[in-house]
Amino acid sequence: MTTSIRLPKELKVRVSEAAGHAGISSHHFILQAIEEKTLKEELNTNFYEEAEKRYTQIIETGECVSWEEMRCYLESLQSVPNPIKPIARKLEFNVKN
Amino acid sequence: MTTSIRLPKELKVRVSEAAGHAGISSHHFILQAIEEKTLKEELNTNFYEEAEKRYTQIIETGECVSWEEMRCYLESLQSVPNPIKPIARKLEFNVKN
Repeated sequence: MTTSIRLPKELKVRVSEAAGHAGISSHHFILQAIEEKTLKEELNTNFYEEAEKRYTQIIETGECVSWEEMRCYLESLQSVPNPIKPIARKLEFNVKN
Repeated sequence: MTTSIRLPKELKVRVSEAAGHAGISSHHFILQAIEEKTLKEELNTNFYEEAEKRYTQIIETGECVSWEEMRCYLESLQSVPNPIKPIARKLEFNVKN
């Protein structure tokens, strides 16, 4: 599937030089650029969607995991094969003024 | 100037979705991707070329600036309008075994 891109002449020259430095063809360089930016955008979108989903869940249920428990879990991942995941529950917050 | 890119169909669909999320056209998204990667490569190349040039100069002349002086200079940039740049000179190194 061929896509036509209107590339300013000046940019085309820069792409050619940058690709030369990277030791690949201009075409390969452009393909890499498109793939990399697309992946970055996808990961970014997924990250925010996941965060929004979890935040909504916290608001709806009032249940969450304390940072102390989560930190403990994350640290144990390095030494214990299958550590027990902390369970979400309603937490009491001490809000300071 | 038009450049033709052979874009795999699957990537084309992903680009279209990512561009939609970013609120721009696929064409604009691709152009941005190419510009961003080109600039990154250029900066990277300049950085290494400059570093190589300076390193060669150090080797040839044996002159350089100590980190203590450079650090002092960099910090003074925040408070003094035109601080005096440290001058490169032959340094004696205390090499520890």
